[in-house]
Order: sequence, then C-alpha cells, then structure tokens
Amino acid sequence: MPTPKNSSAVLLITCPDQKGLVATVSGELYRFGANIIHADQHQDHEEGLFFMRVEWLLEDFDLAGFRSVFEEIAARFNMTWQLKVNTERPRVAILVSQHLHCLADLLQRHQLGELECDIPLILSNHNDGESLAKYHGIDFRVIEASAANRAEAEEKQLTLLREANVELIVLARYMQILTPNFVAHYPFGIINVHHSFLPAFIGARPYHAAFGRGVKLIGATSHYVTAGLDDGPIIEQDVARISHRDQVQDLVARGRDLERLVLSRAVRWHLDRRIVSYRNKTVIFD
Amino acid sequence: MPTPKNSSAVLLITCPDQKGLVATVSGELYRFGANIIHADQHQDHEEGLFFMRVEWLLEDFDLAGFRSVFEEIAARFNMTWQLKVNTERPRVAILVSQHLHCLADLLQRHQLGELECDIPLILSNHNDGESLAKYHGIDFRVIEASAANRAEAEEKQLTLLREANVELIVLARYMQILTPNFVAHYPFGIINVHHSFLPAFIGARPYHAAFGRGVKLIGATSHYVTAGLDDGPIIEQDVARISHRDQVQDLVARGRDLERLVLSRAVRWHLDRRIVSYRNKTVIFD
Amino acid sequence: MPTPKNSSAVLLITCPDQKGLVATVSGELYRFGANIIHADQHQDHEEGLFFMRVEWLLEDFDLAGFRSVFEEIAARFNMTWQLKVNTERPRVAILVSQHLHCLADLLQRHQLGELECDIPLILSNHNDGESLAKYHGIDFRVIEASAANRAEAEEKQLTLLREANVELIVLARYMQILTPNFVAHYPFGIINVHHSFLPAFIGARPYHAAFGRGVKLIGATSHYVTAGLDDGPIIEQDVARISHRDQVQDLVARGRDLERLVLSRAVRWHLDRRIVSYRNKTVIFD
Amino acid sequence: MPTPKNSSAVLLITCPDQKGLVATVSGELYRFGANIIHADQHQDHEEGLFFMRVEWLLEDFDLAGFRSVFEEIAARFNMTWQLKVNTERPRVAILVSQHLHCLADLLQRHQLGELECDIPLILSNHNDGESLAKYHGIDFRVIEASAANRAEAEEKQLTLLREANVELIVLARYMQILTPNFVAHYPFGIINVHHSFLPAFIGARPYHAAFGRGVKLIGATSHYVTAGLDDGPIIEQDVARISHRDQVQDLVARGRDLERLVLSRAVRWHLDRRIVSYRNKTVIFD
Repeated sequence: MPTPKNSSAVLLITCPDQKGLVATVSGELYRFGANIIHADQHQDHEEGLFFMRVEWLLEDFDLAGFRSVFEEIAARFNMTWQLKVNTERPRVAILVSQHLHCLADLLQRHQLGELECDIPLILSNHNDGESLAKYHGIDFRVIEASAANRAEAEEKQLTLLREANVELIVLARYMQILTPNFVAHYPFGIINVHHSFLPAFIGARPYHAAFGRGVKLIGATSHYVTAGLDDGPIIEQDVARISHRDQVQDLVARGRDLERLVLSRAVRWHLDRRIVSYRNKTVIFD
Repeated sequence: MPTPKNSSAVLLITCPDQKGLVATVSGELYRFGANIIHADQHQDHEEGLFFMRVEWLLEDFDLAGFRSVFEEIAARFNMTWQLKVNTERPRVAILVSQHLHCLADLLQRHQLGELECDIPLILSNHNDGESLAKYHGIDFRVIEASAANRAEAEEKQLTLLREANVELIVLARYMQILTPNFVAHYPFGIINVHHSFLPAFIGARPYHAAFGRGVKLIGATSHYVTAGLDDGPIIEQDVARISHRDQVQDLVARGRDLERLVLSRAVRWHLDRRIVSYRNKTVIFD
Repeated sequence: MPTPKNSSAVLLITCPDQKGLVATVSGELYRFGANIIHADQHQDHEEGLFFMRVEWLLEDFDLAGFRSVFEEIAARFNMTWQLKVNTERPRVAILVSQHLHCLADLLQRHQLGELECDIPLILSNHNDGESLAKYHGIDFRVIEASAANRAEAEEKQLTLLREANVELIVLARYMQILTPNFVAHYPFGIINVHHSFLPAFIGARPYHAAFGRGVKLIGATSHYVTAGLDDGPIIEQDVARISHRDQVQDLVARGRDLERLVLSRAVRWHLDRRIVSYRNKTVIFD
Repeated sequence: MPTPKNSSAVLLITCPDQKGLVATVSGELYRFGANIIHADQHQDHEEGLFFMRVEWLLEDFDLAGFRSVFEEIAARFNMTWQLKVNTERPRVAILVSQHLHCLADLLQRHQLGELECDIPLILSNHNDGESLAKYHGIDFRVIEASAANRAEAEEKQLTLLREANVELIVLARYMQILTPNFVAHYPFGIINVHHSFLPAFIGARPYHAAFGRGVKLIGATSHYVTAGLDDGPIIEQDVARISHRDQVQDLVARGRDLERLVLSRAVRWHLDRRIVSYRNKTVIFD
C-alpha cells in the first residue's frame, strides 16, 4: 500500500521565453511562504519557449490567494498554465480490445497504489476483459466498433465517458482508429501505446514489419493521440534487444513487456502532472 | 596487446533446411579429429533455411583433406559456404569524409589489437583525416567526389581498392552515395554506419529529423551496403536515451558514441566471420 | 490467447567436454528421424564442460525407443541429462509476503498464457495476497513464519508443497529466510528475486544501501536458491538508470518493474527448459 | 570541429535548504540583466540540502559587479559555491599505466573537440603511451611507481602536476594506488575509472570476479577519488549484457567500451561544471 502523501499543489507553465520568469514565479511563491518540494524549468531556445513545474506543500498555504495573484502574472507573461492539487484524484477511462496485457498491467499497478487516480470505466469492442474489470470492481461496457459504425460507436463512447466524468483516456491496445472528432473532445487527454519504436513501423502489424526488416532492437512508444495516425507527441519509448533467433511470435512476446512499461510510465507521469506538450513534443519533468 | 591466438578455421554455412545437417557436418569434423572450440547453428523456419558456424583448432588437422571432402557434402546439401583460417588477416579499407570520430575510433581499436585485420588504405573526399592516417602509418588518398563526378571518382576509388587488395570496405561516415555499380564489386563487403535507428529517419540529417519528431531515444545502425539507400541488411543497432533538455547538437554529440560502437562491433564481427547475410537480414553468431 | 503449441521434446545435457559429442547426439536423433526445431550447445573451456539443448517435434517420433538408446549414450559420455515433453505442464507454487507486485505480475502473465505451467498453490506468511489468489482460482494458504518458528513453519510448507506435487517454487518477494534443510528438498527448484544487482547489496534493504552509496543504476537479480544468502546461480539481471532526483521511495518504485521483469523471465526460461546450472553459474539457452 | 561557443558563466551552489533560495538567486541575476541559458536546482530533502546550477551569457553582463553582490548572498545563506567562465579552459593531466584504451579514447575526443580543456601533461609508470602522447603533442613523463617507492614517486608526480598547473587529474586505468596525502592535494579533482559496477567487485581483477560469480551484466564506474579504495562519489556507471558464451577475455574486451564511455562522460561533465559532490554522492546537472 502506498503511504498517504502530503497535500501538495503543482503548477505547470508554458510561455514565450523572456528574462525574469523564474525570478517572478519563485519570488511570488516565496512571498506566499510556499514550502517548495520540487521545482524545475526548461527553455527551448530554438522555439523561444519557457516551461516550468513547481510543486509545494499546501499546509498553511493560501492557495486561493496565490491563484488570484498568479492569474495576473500569467496574463502579463502570456502563460498557458494549470494549477492542480494532488488531493483531487484524476478520473481515468481505459479502452481495450482483445490484447489484455496492458489492461491487466495498469489494473494491478492501480491496485498496488502505483497510479494515483480513479478508474470508473473500461470500454471495449470485445468482452474479453470483462472478468478482469469485474475483479477490480470497474464498470465494463462493450460497444461494438468497426470502420462500418465508427460515428455511431464513438457517439456512445463519448456519452459514457462524459457520464463517467473522466479527464484522461488510456488506449491499452485499443485496435480501432479514433476519428478527429473524437480526439478533439480530449486534447492531450488520450494516451496510446504503439507497438513499435516510432516513427519506424507506423500503422498495422509493426512486429511483422520489424521482423521483415531484420532490426536488432524492437521498441514501443506511448504518445498523446492527435488527428494523425501514430503521429502525436511522444511521451516515452523503450527498446529491447532481439536476435536472429527470435521469430515474429518472440517479438510479440518481448514487445508486450515494452508496451506495459512505456504505457504505465506515460500514465503515471500524466497523473503526476509531469508532462507539458507543445509543437508535437513533450517536456517530461522528472 | 592482444595475446597471440591459436590458429583456427571457421566454416560458415547457409543452405536449405533438411534433416541430418548437423549430424553430417559434425560427424565429418569428428572423423577428421577436429578440436571444436565453438559451434552454433540457426534455423529460419519461415524461410526454410539452415545456418551454421563452426570454429576448430588447426593443429594436427588436415585442412586440405577436409576441404575436399566437405566440397562434396556442400554440393549434396546445396550449401553456400566459406572456410577461412584466422592466420590470413583480412585487408580492409576505410572511406571517410569530414567527421573523423568513427575513423579515429577504428584506428585506435586497430592499434590496440581489437580488430584482427590489416588496414592498408584510407580514402577520403577531404583531407581532414590525413594526420590521423599518417600517425597510424596508413596510406591516405584524397579523391574528390560529388554528384557531379561520381562515375569518374568511383573508377579511381575502385582502382586503388583493387590495388590494395581489400576484401572489406568500411564507410566511417563517408557522406557520398555509392552507385549500384560500385556496390556490385563488393557484395556484403561494404559496411556503413547510419546515424539513426533504421528504418526511422532514412536519408540526410537524421538527428535533425529525430529532434523534430521529439523521440525519446536516438539510435545508430551499422549495415551492409546494397543498392538501396540505407536499406541493406542490418548488422547492429544501439540507442541512447535523450530528453527534452537535449538540443540537436546534443543529439549529434551523443550519437557519435553510438556510431562508434555499432560500427566497430559490425567490423569486428565481420572480421571474426560471425555474420551470415540472407534475405536482407543477418545472422550474428555470438 | 496463446496459440496451441505442437508437442515437442527437450533434451538438456551436461557432461565433460570431449570430441564427438555433437556428432553422436545429432547422429542418433537423425537416425530416429527427429524434426529438430532448435539446437544449441556450449562449451566451458576453462571447466572442460559441454552443454547441449535440443528441441524436436514429437509427431511420428519413437520417444521411448530414443530414450532407451540415449540412456546408453548418456552413460558412455558420463552425462547429466533430462528429457522432457512440453505436454506435461510443470506444477509451480509461489511463496509471497506483503509486497504483491511480483505475484500479481506472475499471475497476469499466467492468465494471459505467457507461462506454460499450472499453479496449484500460493503460500504466504501474511494474508494480503488472498483476494488475488481467489480471483485466479488458486489455493492460498497462510503459514505464519518467522525466525522463532522456522522449523515448524517449513515442515508445514513442505507438506503442502509435497501434496501439491510442485517441481518449482517461486519466491515472489518472500521475505523469510529458507533453511538449508528446506532448500535441499528442491535443488535448482527454487527461484528467488533479489532487489539489487548482485553481488552488490546482499541482504536486507538493498534500495536503501544503493541510495546511501549514491549509485547511478539500480538493479534486480533472479537466481536459484542455495544454502548461502543471495548466493545461488544467477539467472537474470537487469538495471535501470536513476539520478540524484530519485529518493529511496523512487528507487523502490522503479525497482518493482525490474523485479517483475527478471523474475518472470527466470520462471519462463526454467519452464521452457532453457537453463542449465553448474558451478554456481547458469547457461541460458536462447 | 566544434563550433565556437559563446562566452558564458556557470554558477554552482550548495547550501542548507531554506525558503527563498531560488527567488533570491534568480532575482539577483534578473536585476543584473542575465540572459540565462540553463538553470536547474535540486533539493535533498533527507539531508536538508539545496543545489543549484545556472549558466548565462556573458555579453553585456557585469560579472565583477555580480560577483561582489553574490558574495554577500552566499555568506548570508551559508553557500559553498563556484563561479566559472567557460573561456578559461581547465587544465587537465592524465595518469595511465599499460592499458591505453581510455587514454586513446580521451585524446581522440579532445582532438575532435568533445572535451573543452587543455591537456599539458601525461604521467605514466610505463612508457607504452609515449607515441600516442607525442602524436597529440602532449608532454609525456615516465615516473616509476610501485608500492616500494610510493612516497618518492608521488612527490615527483605532485611537482610535475603543480608545474603543469592542472586542476583535474584523470586516472585512465592508472594501476597504482594513490596515498591519502596525494589525494588531499586534489579534493574532488581526481577522476578514476573502475572496471566494475561498484560497489560490486571492489579491488583488483573485477572482470575475473564477475566471471567467477556468473553475473549477467558487467559494468564500469567513474568516480572521484577519495582516501578509501574505490569508495569515492560515483559520477557515472554503465553496464553491458553478457552471456554464458563470454569468457573472461570477452568480459575484458566488452568492458573496455564501458570504461571509455563512463570515464569520458565523467570528464566532460566535470569540465562543463555539471557536477556537485556531497556526502559521498554526486548531483549531475544535465
């Protein structure tokens, strides 16, 4: 079981780079007496952008007061920002098809306290995951989905997601394409795992393509979903060494571990408010 | 300094898979009293192919007799094969342009005894590598090469390579494209290093492309050169983790180590007769 | 779901190295018409030992006849050997304490068909794992164990293990020491996971020790259990990069993934008869 | 060739953690109009320590004025600090014995512009490295050193190092032990490479020890030298996978690449003022 964490707030900032940003933000937090536990910033010199993440304890801290002062600062520096407290657990839905290893992995991690969120809903176009969902006490709904009924299926999915009030959707090997319309409802709110080292082997059957090309390492990639296929901002990637001894089914088997790892890391970092996305890239504050 | 090695022979075999191959080859070696120090075989079930590598000591071994018996076996089983003794050191030429890190790395490894070969010739389209070649006592020739004079330049290169009697050509960041005509003179005899995790980022400026795509790992690939651009059989790949903190020049710097490693490994394995290439793939006997 | 596998036999051999071993074994298999799907051998020149693993299809194969002929060969060459058919699924028990991540990981892999075995029994000195065992339909027994009642507790455990007829015991973060007496009942039949890169940080609280020493990589190790603490033959190790930003609890969290991976790989390789252990080392046929 | 870098200053700070540190330092830099290109900070909550690294452009910056103001701040917050400008290239000496791969690697990197320093002196207890030093135009001095003449030899070494005015000493596989007296002259100014994954296999012949223990990964470690053997703050570690096929000499050969990598990274980070050392650990600002 995870030890209960202290209440803390996380501030995530993106804005045009300019002098005095760190001084201003840290100065204001100091004025409010913030007990900072982590702070990190990043500059993208090429794009002229500045990124910052600060986390501080909420005990004896006037959050409402700070927020109202900070809103003025944010406007002055043209910031995109979010301010979250860790006591409000994000709500997450998982979409899955017939490969259950990522779903099973996420649920065991959630059960063991590795993922700080609530998971009220699992959606699938098959019923394979039902007993797993039931064991974990999570609502499991089957919505048949295919190229033929895409619009209709997505309408049903969106309704259930809205009712479940989720802010993050995890595609745990969900094998249907999402339309731009669906994606537009959750900007930077849908995380997918692709079973290759993107941008190599975009699209279907990447392990077969990797085997055919004779690569010496296979990979997996977690990324935010955008309108383009397998084209969103990459969150995490990992690889495993293979050899000529490995057949396609060995690549599939080894790849499952990569998929589990890169997807669960991406979800955890998202939940911990460690990711800022911009220009089809991500900053991961560690 | 490397310890002097015992004389040994290496037999590399590729043929259609069929029953009795290992029994026949190992039986014949046993009949000749071979003292085997390494033996490995591989089957590609999909393609129905069999591969074998055997290495044995030459002391008290009738190599000529074995060769003549083996020729019959090879014919019977439709084998492609080579039989080499390690006392005949392969002769190698290196082609390089202005990035000298792979050349410098190969030469220091050669000097320290990590690469069992002779290097009689370095060819370049620039003169940057000259002092390095001179220090190592290797003939260094500049042949200007560009899209404009390709045929003529390659003619000169081929002449020098033929005179130097090399069996392996290493492209140590040689930035000119080789024509299919050139490549045809050295089938599976040209090793290139590409500064990406192929097949991602084929072609020019792969680190810039990787940076633009926002990948979380960069890679390098060594491969045999074929007529297609960056499309030959992959010998080795490796990757390094990068983060949002890394700019393009950081990718270039980190990539240099990957290039050094994957190229030097490929050359060493080739020299040790550990590689069999087929269907645009490689078997690496380790 | 795993595709049903063809029936196959695996022969594992260890013996003093001598000429003609491969020729004799492969010759005999050829004489029986074996359709070999994998074969690999290894020589430890320093110890003068030979190791071999062969796997072949059982269809149209006279296994009893081969076994009786092979027994003579084995005697002649002084072989230690085992011959197993993959249709007899090994029976496995898992021992666990309060950290459930390795147990949960093994059970989901078993459910998804990654581990070819039956798991009739889970033993624990705590009841935390009960609901997980129940969901997977596995008998779960609590036997209180501590330094005080070790002999008595082990007696009960051994009785249950004997009744369950298991050949492999997996210590999935089981936090009690096993006595030499217990271990002697299952030579090379108990696999443990230690949460460090052995032989660094033997014993209790290795993540704290790693943090104190300021290492830049943490590791995990799976190994066969012998009489000495954390001293048995190593099966698999893996590491993860950490930085100064990681506190002890971050090491523990990252380490959980390493423990899951190295333990599940060790169990899979053992079940697939890929491991030969000798002189406190392992040969892993891949 | 490296592109010429802009002049910049780096400030490295260690002090007891307290509120307002980032606000004060970044506020003062803002007041002086600093154009910050990198800034990072770290808190060790357990030890109650704060670390910061800031790098900014020197153009139009009153460095002397800032330094005098900052001295007051540093005194107030009880800071240990250094302020360096990158136009003053550090002077480095290398000590080496008979294994030359790390020396050769460092020199080629230096030649290619990867290490921003001057190397006026190489010291050795053997003359193997002489031609390499000569090619690179570096003074090479042989001082015989053994347990018998340690004090005398170190006296000569210290004299030469003092004359060469070096601030960093790199032990590139220098196989003699340095006395505490010698080490005391260069606190956090001597970097060593140890050919194991410390703290495993401290002392002599670590590859033999690793082989004997049957590990599945070998490692190398770069660290600052302190009075205790192989016990100083670890800067970098890396590992490579090995298998039962690798004999001791294979471990030695693969280990050379690990040694090259971890030593060259440590030297580069030290030269770039990215390392702060405390409590036998290091913070590596990346």
